[in-house]
Amino acid sequence: MATTHKDADAGEPARGPLSGPSSRGRRRADAERSIAAIVDAAMTAFSENSEVSMVDIARVAGVGRVTLYSHFSSREELMDVVMAHAVKEANAVLGGEEAKETPAREALGELIRSSWQILGRYGRLQVAALRVLGPERMREHHNEPLVRVRNIVTRGRREGVIRDDLPEDWLVSVFYSLLHTAALEVDSGRLRPETAADALEATLLSAIGA
Amino acid sequence: MATTHKDADAGEPARGPLSGPSSRGRRRADAERSIAAIVDAAMTAFSENSEVSMVDIARVAGVGRVTLYSHFSSREELMDVVMAHAVKEANAVLGGEEAKETPAREALGELIRSSWQILGRYGRLQVAALRVLGPERMREHHNEPLVRVRNIVTRGRREGVIRDDLPEDWLVSVFYSLLHTAALEVDSGRLRPETAADALEATLLSAIGA
Repeated sequence: MATTHKDADAGEPARGPLSGPSSRGRRRADAERSIAAIVDAAMTAFSENSEVSMVDIARVAGVGRVTLYSHFSSREELMDVVMAHAVKEANAVLGGEEAKETPAREALGELIRSSWQILGRYGRLQVAALRVLGPERMREHHNEPLVRVRNIVTRGRREGVIRDDLPEDWLVSVFYSLLHTAALEVDSGRLRPETAADALEATLLSAIGA
Repeated sequence: MATTHKDADAGEPARGPLSGPSSRGRRRADAERSIAAIVDAAMTAFSENSEVSMVDIARVAGVGRVTLYSHFSSREELMDVVMAHAVKEANAVLGGEEAKETPAREALGELIRSSWQILGRYGRLQVAALRVLGPERMREHHNEPLVRVRNIVTRGRREGVIRDDLPEDWLVSVFYSLLHTAALEVDSGRLRPETAADALEATLLSAIGA
């Protein structure tokens, strides 16, 4: 599993006859395996309990506390890597750029439904991440997938199906905000899961449609 | 200043000839002054830095660490009282029930504008509170002011100016979510403050209007 975290062993000086390139390569591979195990464990653990301790994450990952802290100095740093990983996975599921020949309003509906399905996979991770990272850092993590929304908004304005009386940035934020609100509402029991997708789509199309 | 926090001295047994009712009353008054100073200091400190430490809050409040911890055992407990206090103030500014003779759509517009102005006073406190308390607890704090939104939604449906194809709970959440999103967007610099109120009103009226 690839992560965006830098290898904590990089640049460590050689310490004797066994520390040649192959030994260093082995330590790097060990470090990468540890990081992958920690990120996997953290993704599950944070989803189950936003206040899970670093000690518990180390236990689930099968690594020692010292190893965990050598790669991630804080819960925040670890959550940052977990979110980057989750968004990258989500972005890959969303696939490449949407077909330009699909009318923008239809493309928006499709994007709402696929984003909603993907958000469902990460269940409570977003609630935990919001607490650990704060709303602004969470939003930054979503900049890449939100490029799709921006492209549809731009195209939809040209086609006259997206409102052009409000800033584009704001319309993108409305999309992001209502999507995540719907997930929180389902999680809290205020919105029925079988109603959520339709409610979200109807609300978003009214809010940002022309 | 009244707070909702219970007096930590309540129920403490008398400890000698000086601990009569008047001495206990004095200690209770001291405790209330400390709590008020701590909540005031915390409201300012959290607004400036969501990660401010309990030690720094004690310093700004002019109380010792032991006193602070005797009243609030954690940052979360303190933030909970700060938010209760802020929402109570906000709710008082919003005033009593809205006039029933105002048409619902007009009443909704007024409520959006007054809520937006009040939210502006608490600046970055909401960002800090979201991190410390999590989105669900934050939402619970707003249940009382959101009764106004629910009443207008119910009345607006009867008047045919609020959409009736989606659950009432969801429309209330859309109001809450977009209001707080607009505040975050202004805070992050993505939305211009002079545009925000109009953008918020236009979006909300489209999202939940009939």
